[in-house]
Amino acid sequence: MPGNSFGTLFRITTWGESHGPALGVVIDGCPAGLELDLAEIQAQLDRRRVGQSRVTSARREPDEVEILSGVFEGQTTGTPISLLIRNTNAKSGDYDAIKDVYRPGHADYTYDAKYGFRDHRGGGRSSARETAARVAAGAVARQILARMGISLIGYTSSMAHLSAQVIDEAEIERNIMRCPDAAVAAEMVALVESARHERDSLGGVVEVRARGVPPGLGEPVFDKLDALIGHAMFSIPAVKAVEIGAGVEVARLRGSQNNDPFELRPDGSIGTTTNHAGGILGGISSGSEIVVRLTAKPPASIAQEQQTVNAAGEPATIVVKGRHDPTVLPRLVPVAEAMLALVLVDCVLQSRATRL
Amino acid sequence: MPGNSFGTLFRITTWGESHGPALGVVIDGCPAGLELDLAEIQAQLDRRRVGQSRVTSARREPDEVEILSGVFEGQTTGTPISLLIRNTNAKSGDYDAIKDVYRPGHADYTYDAKYGFRDHRGGGRSSARETAARVAAGAVARQILARMGISLIGYTSSMAHLSAQVIDEAEIERNIMRCPDAAVAAEMVALVESARHERDSLGGVVEVRARGVPPGLGEPVFDKLDALIGHAMFSIPAVKAVEIGAGVEVARLRGSQNNDPFELRPDGSIGTTTNHAGGILGGISSGSEIVVRLTAKPPASIAQEQQTVNAAGEPATIVVKGRHDPTVLPRLVPVAEAMLALVLVDCVLQSRATRL
Amino acid sequence: MPGNSFGTLFRITTWGESHGPALGVVIDGCPAGLELDLAEIQAQLDRRRVGQSRVTSARREPDEVEILSGVFEGQTTGTPISLLIRNTNAKSGDYDAIKDVYRPGHADYTYDAKYGFRDHRGGGRSSARETAARVAAGAVARQILARMGISLIGYTSSMAHLSAQVIDEAEIERNIMRCPDAAVAAEMVALVESARHERDSLGGVVEVRARGVPPGLGEPVFDKLDALIGHAMFSIPAVKAVEIGAGVEVARLRGSQNNDPFELRPDGSIGTTTNHAGGILGGISSGSEIVVRLTAKPPASIAQEQQTVNAAGEPATIVVKGRHDPTVLPRLVPVAEAMLALVLVDCVLQSRATRL
Amino acid sequence: MPGNSFGTLFRITTWGESHGPALGVVIDGCPAGLELDLAEIQAQLDRRRVGQSRVTSARREPDEVEILSGVFEGQTTGTPISLLIRNTNAKSGDYDAIKDVYRPGHADYTYDAKYGFRDHRGGGRSSARETAARVAAGAVARQILARMGISLIGYTSSMAHLSAQVIDEAEIERNIMRCPDAAVAAEMVALVESARHERDSLGGVVEVRARGVPPGLGEPVFDKLDALIGHAMFSIPAVKAVEIGAGVEVARLRGSQNNDPFELRPDGSIGTTTNHAGGILGGISSGSEIVVRLTAKPPASIAQEQQTVNAAGEPATIVVKGRHDPTVLPRLVPVAEAMLALVLVDCVLQSRATRL
Repeated sequence: MPGNSFGTLFRITTWGESHGPALGVVIDGCPAGLELDLAEIQAQLDRRRVGQSRVTSARREPDEVEILSGVFEGQTTGTPISLLIRNTNAKSGDYDAIKDVYRPGHADYTYDAKYGFRDHRGGGRSSARETAARVAAGAVARQILARMGISLIGYTSSMAHLSAQVIDEAEIERNIMRCPDAAVAAEMVALVESARHERDSLGGVVEVRARGVPPGLGEPVFDKLDALIGHAMFSIPAVKAVEIGAGVEVARLRGSQNNDPFELRPDGSIGTTTNHAGGILGGISSGSEIVVRLTAKPPASIAQEQQTVNAAGEPATIVVKGRHDPTVLPRLVPVAEAMLALVLVDCVLQSRATRL
Repeated sequence: MPGNSFGTLFRITTWGESHGPALGVVIDGCPAGLELDLAEIQAQLDRRRVGQSRVTSARREPDEVEILSGVFEGQTTGTPISLLIRNTNAKSGDYDAIKDVYRPGHADYTYDAKYGFRDHRGGGRSSARETAARVAAGAVARQILARMGISLIGYTSSMAHLSAQVIDEAEIERNIMRCPDAAVAAEMVALVESARHERDSLGGVVEVRARGVPPGLGEPVFDKLDALIGHAMFSIPAVKAVEIGAGVEVARLRGSQNNDPFELRPDGSIGTTTNHAGGILGGISSGSEIVVRLTAKPPASIAQEQQTVNAAGEPATIVVKGRHDPTVLPRLVPVAEAMLALVLVDCVLQSRATRL
Repeated sequence: MPGNSFGTLFRITTWGESHGPALGVVIDGCPAGLELDLAEIQAQLDRRRVGQSRVTSARREPDEVEILSGVFEGQTTGTPISLLIRNTNAKSGDYDAIKDVYRPGHADYTYDAKYGFRDHRGGGRSSARETAARVAAGAVARQILARMGISLIGYTSSMAHLSAQVIDEAEIERNIMRCPDAAVAAEMVALVESARHERDSLGGVVEVRARGVPPGLGEPVFDKLDALIGHAMFSIPAVKAVEIGAGVEVARLRGSQNNDPFELRPDGSIGTTTNHAGGILGGISSGSEIVVRLTAKPPASIAQEQQTVNAAGEPATIVVKGRHDPTVLPRLVPVAEAMLALVLVDCVLQSRATRL
Repeated sequence: MPGNSFGTLFRITTWGESHGPALGVVIDGCPAGLELDLAEIQAQLDRRRVGQSRVTSARREPDEVEILSGVFEGQTTGTPISLLIRNTNAKSGDYDAIKDVYRPGHADYTYDAKYGFRDHRGGGRSSARETAARVAAGAVARQILARMGISLIGYTSSMAHLSAQVIDEAEIERNIMRCPDAAVAAEMVALVESARHERDSLGGVVEVRARGVPPGLGEPVFDKLDALIGHAMFSIPAVKAVEIGAGVEVARLRGSQNNDPFELRPDGSIGTTTNHAGGILGGISSGSEIVVRLTAKPPASIAQEQQTVNAAGEPATIVVKGRHDPTVLPRLVPVAEAMLALVLVDCVLQSRATRL
């Protein structure tokens, strides 16, 4: 199927270009009877939007969400929820210079190769601006999860050589890096400013966790919970690695170290004494915390001269103008949370068909 | 949808338990007119099967594949290809001891939590034996890709602290670790024997590459080529991390280092001077080599005593008997190649709908 | 999956309630490179909209379509096309009287039973107003088909006891019944006025045909061309029967009468001397004209008193107010054509994956 | 997607040619915990199989079903159920004569046009023999429905000019026509023998009904219950018309006649005093009996000479040999029931996602 939809029973379809009149999402399959909190959707969009701080792009847009269908007298009706966000601050002129030149690290060339031509204004559909629609849909998903006692948290765990040493959850939304370690956050901000000064950009790692996930979510064999999460996370622009639980570290562990022993919890439920598995065994949730880590590349748009070619097939140099983030990390956090929320809601609905 | 299918236009559905009478796969959407090479399907199955060497399980089965439909006079007809593999050497009795005890690191508990009960014989559907069906289907996909000039290669790149220092492709199938570095391969074999002696198991990394992939494969936004690869790879048992191109290393790179400059190739096509992106830009293939890395956990089945609980909710200890691999790496190689082949064939067919 | 999407490779998702702020459709999978004729989309919407004549509802709305994405410099880009139509003339107050009473023949009761409550304003999502979104999407599909030499035509073939005796295609859009027989059309109009006077409504039959369809469209076994058409047509409100070719008449034919003999056409192609099959053999198009017939029930909303029950489970009577059509036939024509266009475009794209 | 699968949450994939070694079906999504009655599956297959009487084909095959996966200790495990039926009595030699000649009314030409060549033995995949796999899967679906109090019944309601005048359900399985009117059944049998003597075949009508269906099944807008039924029924070979409830008769009814008044039933539930709607309002089940009617064409294989062309594009005549049914009606009954069962189970599972 064409690639602008995600999910099976809670299924979203996003649309809209970075520099068109608007972007949006249609959510099909939201169960009826949810008291939808519009302010909470807006709050999630605000977390993602640009212009929030000196570590993100200077493009400023309110990203106000409008609900066009699917809600009646404050409740979801079970019919499609159409959410629309107007683009109000697109500066397409910034992009004329790159109309015929392929920016290194961007989708310019691959879109051209695929479609025969492209909307060069701000990356068109390949722009990270598209993720606003995901965050809006994810905010609806989160409200359903909240009703079921499932909560999500995300944060920047490392950038370049800097890694959070402590996970102080209360700290996360207090600093502009969304780093749970206040001291490291300050170092990160300084590093971003230094990189921006050098007309360069930085990569890093975001971690997202889900708590209160019941055991039994995920469908063997191909729609394992981790497979769906992998699909979701790699669909986010800039993500180059996805890890579950101990992730790449398991390469160095022995079975006797990596296996998480089962234990009885005080409440009578079954848990594990460690969580190398990141809450997923055999592709199905175990009831332990779901732990996912994404590695994001440094943004490709940098204001220094780079070697490339143009559409005519001639060598060229390029300096990418426009208002770009020197790091995607703080804005990636709400997007990654949204994608995890979308996966989990879908799995919850799907799991209702498991038993007679 | 239920999770036993993969792909959209080239769609496979696998079935069968480790200890049932047979397992198999139905391939729907294989284009008509392919001269199907059955020996090549069998050859791929032989690469995956157990009992090949002292680094894999002692279970010995021929894994002979039988074609029940979809081929007429040696050619695919466009109708479903049904492939069947009989289970001939299941020793279900080995599993009676674990009937009521949850093996740490296994799907025993999560399947119970999901379905209310489980087929405890050899893990039932969660067994890695299911991947034989994928390899059979992947072998069909590879024959289509070969016709289009696309080839795949995979190998063990590291295990525990040992990493291949050279990539000698001719070496890969010569050693039982499928490691492209003969010297390191020998060390790996020694390490496996040592781990087996200690009743323990080992994790590691497999890398798969695809060459000759045309630019333009993958569907934005949610069905990006990397998203489909992520989905495919995380659906393989034991995989805990998936990386594309430079993967987790991009966290430490700057944009000026990570961006791959475009260049003109001697044949007039557009390429890149480096390949940190692993052949995918904006979710769409660029024409460069596709590079994917999987980290696999150490097999959970180990012959030493572990703490766990039983189905009645009481503390228990367990020693997992049966014939288990101390490492999955050499057998993971053909499975990972198969999954990559399945993704690519589907994208090739899908890409035919891109332009008017 | 939730039911607001249709199609596989050319996939539409419609949203919006009859009395909400707007309705719309997202088209995902439209091939890149189509010069999109917006006026033609509007022209199709104008054919469907209300208030055109004395045989349709008195609700008057311009149904102006707005394109929000997927088109750049007049051409489709391959990314989702979002089309939006504002509701400008909803009179929700008309519906307060039916808030707690189930209208016979309507979805009031079944939506309540399904979702626990409903948007009672104008039927919410079950309103035929939703079909405007289909017509808009179908108008895009028709432009693709036109490029391939495929054209569609539809008309009212009978209403109550009146049936077109001649098929004068030039006549169809000249009369408000869209009947290809001018004399019968005049009788139909008189009958509609009589029924409206009697506060009653009328059923009838619409026929749609597609010409220039190449042989080979449709996917055996479950996605036969006729199965997809059946799905599409029964998804239109009020349709209670779908026939292909000779339809219900084949019950009385013998094989020797019903079989369409093959013949060579002057252009060297293979055709049939008759077309009882309606252009479909074994679920796959034969190259002959596709012929589909729909029987539509008389509109359920009538201004006479009817027996029913209310939501509290008590007997009640109801007189349905609002602005309703005494017959759906002339407006059903463009909707049926749109659905057939959507099916055919999807099959055309899908057929590209058939052969190696 | 390729067309050999049906359903979303209870999803079947059928495979196999008429004259290959076997045919079968994989059922994915069958809920865990069903005590599967294998004898009941076999009983449904026995109802469909050939050679039962003088009104059906003379090909005799036991159609013994083998379960290869998905059932453990008599219960469904939630994993795919693979069912296999061996072809034991294929006489492929019968078909050599038609290798290069297109049989009128058959899929020979259209398969050739689609795939470039075809398996000419017995129609390959287009043979009605494929429906055995559907009946096997439907028999599993029926067992789930039975647990929920939903039952199905089907019968031959008319053939040529003969129509059942009474519906005596006890009579249906007593006569070889599966006609609920014993007297008319006897006339039908005589007519079939007469047609066979004349080397001709007969069309007719089958009706299927479902009782105990709860209100609320079906997904608006495109996956209405009637749309799914239309899809399912038109996927059955030979079906040229599908009607719901009053069907084609509604063309002659007025709204005041056709609307089914709501009433309270003695048990407190809401019902209707008539059932012109056939149990579906707005695409969603109302709780009334689901009523579906199929018109089947006379079988295309007749033993008299017909005009046609050959694959080289030359005029030819053909006399179709082989063992063919002069009417499909009695064998269509269990197939139509199976398809209705598959639709209903899927809707039941899907409906669990409707509300929060």
